[in-house]
Amino acid sequence: MTVTLPGPTLGVVGGGQLGRMLAEAAAPLGVEVIVLDPTPKCPASLVAREQIVGAFDDRDAIERLAVESDVLTYEIELADPDVLESVAAAYDVPVAPDPNTLRTIQDKLVQKEALADAGIPVPEFVGIGGEKDLRLVVEELGGVMLKAREGGYDGRGNTPVHDPSEAAAALDELGVDTMAESFVPFERELSVIGVKGADAVTTYPVTETVHEDEILRASVSPARSDDDVLARARDVATDVLELLDGYGVYGIELFETPAGEILVNEIAPRPHNSGHWTIEGARTSQFENHVRAVLGWPLGPTELREPTVSVNILGDVDEPAAATLYNVDRVLDAPNAHLHWYGKTQVRPLRKMGHVTVTNPAAGEREEGDTALLEHAETLRDELTFVGDAAERPQSPSEQ
Amino acid sequence: MTVTLPGPTLGVVGGGQLGRMLAEAAAPLGVEVIVLDPTPKCPASLVAREQIVGAFDDRDAIERLAVESDVLTYEIELADPDVLESVAAAYDVPVAPDPNTLRTIQDKLVQKEALADAGIPVPEFVGIGGEKDLRLVVEELGGVMLKAREGGYDGRGNTPVHDPSEAAAALDELGVDTMAESFVPFERELSVIGVKGADAVTTYPVTETVHEDEILRASVSPARSDDDVLARARDVATDVLELLDGYGVYGIELFETPAGEILVNEIAPRPHNSGHWTIEGARTSQFENHVRAVLGWPLGPTELREPTVSVNILGDVDEPAAATLYNVDRVLDAPNAHLHWYGKTQVRPLRKMGHVTVTNPAAGEREEGDTALLEHAETLRDELTFVGDAAERPQSPSEQ
Repeated sequence: MTVTLPGPTLGVVGGGQLGRMLAEAAAPLGVEVIVLDPTPKCPASLVAREQIVGAFDDRDAIERLAVESDVLTYEIELADPDVLESVAAAYDVPVAPDPNTLRTIQDKLVQKEALADAGIPVPEFVGIGGEKDLRLVVEELGGVMLKAREGGYDGRGNTPVHDPSEAAAALDELGVDTMAESFVPFERELSVIGVKGADAVTTYPVTETVHEDEILRASVSPARSDDDVLARARDVATDVLELLDGYGVYGIELFETPAGEILVNEIAPRPHNSGHWTIEGARTSQFENHVRAVLGWPLGPTELREPTVSVNILGDVDEPAAATLYNVDRVLDAPNAHLHWYGKTQVRPLRKMGHVTVTNPAAGEREEGDTALLEHAETLRDELTFVGDAAERPQSPSEQ
Repeated sequence: MTVTLPGPTLGVVGGGQLGRMLAEAAAPLGVEVIVLDPTPKCPASLVAREQIVGAFDDRDAIERLAVESDVLTYEIELADPDVLESVAAAYDVPVAPDPNTLRTIQDKLVQKEALADAGIPVPEFVGIGGEKDLRLVVEELGGVMLKAREGGYDGRGNTPVHDPSEAAAALDELGVDTMAESFVPFERELSVIGVKGADAVTTYPVTETVHEDEILRASVSPARSDDDVLARARDVATDVLELLDGYGVYGIELFETPAGEILVNEIAPRPHNSGHWTIEGARTSQFENHVRAVLGWPLGPTELREPTVSVNILGDVDEPAAATLYNVDRVLDAPNAHLHWYGKTQVRPLRKMGHVTVTNPAAGEREEGDTALLEHAETLRDELTFVGDAAERPQSPSEQ
């Protein structure tokens, strides 16, 4: 294709940190971004050309976005595929990835069925019709993860059920539309960022993800797995990308079993937290490649630049409060550490407020080096706090 | 110092490409940027939080900027040091670099005198009192570069005078306040980006700059000079930084003589075109370090990440026109090429519209590799054109 500048205007449903980093990546490419988000002064609004304030499924607002945009995309699964599809058709503006892909992914049961039907390895799963059904499944599988079929994120909408006696309470918590998955005794969790473009489908080096309470805490790239496991993970991710319709970046979360098997956990039709490391650690960031992909532009190379660790800055408060992050100078002082602040004015317990990426220029020292890098990044992250009192604690002896 | 987030708001006088790339670098750091520029929808406005429309020396506008900002800086020498100084005092907002530094640098004669007084090597120079004076100087030095003492950029405000008979015409062109410099028969031109921070003064690896008609066309980092010449260039730049007052990034243009001597050509009290390569090629970009420096934050490391070449995308038109850049896909398709578009809607002859940076991951192959990299970048740049007809020319045989 022939690309000219100034580039097209990209309309993005959702204006959180993903929208913000998309806008940061779009600016040098000559692509202007408009975001649609219900929260005035959302994180992306400060970098984007404009924010339209409206709900993710507000048809009027999405129509206004379509009128001002040449291409539409979304950075949140709460976008409404039906509205997107009909507005895109009415205003003749392409939307990527395909709303039908979003529809499939939004319903975790439909997503898993689509994967299983395509022969892609997934954990055992089953739709749950009611309490009796769930009791039977728990008895058979010896404990399951019960998941709301729609709307969950960062562990919300998931609850473990170890015994049939817990079934009623779990269903009360998650509502009627649920599915159950067998627990996977995984060796580690992995993630592959994939990109579907007009001319190519490509994947980034496999990332190892570290979760706690089902929230991503850290990612290590490349993952500390055997080369054949990494190759298999990329192969599985490529199969997933084949199955999905529409240009864009996808986050593909995987389990690595003790036997080195790969199972697909979940898919996100957008840039993903486990790909934030690509900003400094890869030849092209996931955000730049999402912009390129949804516009039908040539993709950028996905090779690793250097081994890289990213750690999330989460709200360490007990109650929502105005956000002040202390000890930021410790990150600024650390060589090869890169700060990313999302611009949220309110901190809440475990809310994602930013991240820190650390690269390892001594790329020769693999594995041990990556573990040391992860520990270094975690130490930096642990210095950061939104709690004023904790900020005043004395430095550890080694720092004094 | 203790740094907290959200960070301070940075007010920037000037909203061109330097302000735009400053705002791009400030966003991940949690620093919001407001720019002041006379052109509505200036390049930086799309990335910054806000633009105040006003002249660079408009006191009312600068007061409004000061009210909304925690720290002031400038990205253009046309900023008015007197207004900045008095507004900063009146509103108790620091301005960096020091307006007095701007005052010294704005007047090329005062700048050279300050350098010479400090024992820093510079070309022979002299203030010109009138035509008779200039004739004598030309006779003595055998030809000089006549420079307007204030307001020149990209070769404007400079004119060569080879013979006393040309003196009158040259003075007519440049006005009364001029200075003359001996021609330096240089081996190559170099540039050092320096940073003055609260706790440290540091320099980036030396860049080799390629000019044509006194406009920067390309920069090669590190410069293809001997190691001792590069060390001397950094030493001279460090001496220059010692002399200057105020936190911030400085661009220090140098001549390397055939004997390997270093002479200071000119200084800019701001991020500089010859430092754009640092975005991808250095551990911290000059823009991020300018933000860090003017806020008094710790500086980031300036080490080279990979050998890097940047080439400017200049207006290749004969007349001003609405800007459309063709063949951008050729840059997007090239591995390790990074596009930077400045968002200017009008193209003019030789106007800086963007740049392309190419890094060389095969860092081992020095010198020959850098020359090949420069040629590769120049080939890419030469494909880009604002002239629609030229865009339709057939590709060269090697590309078919």
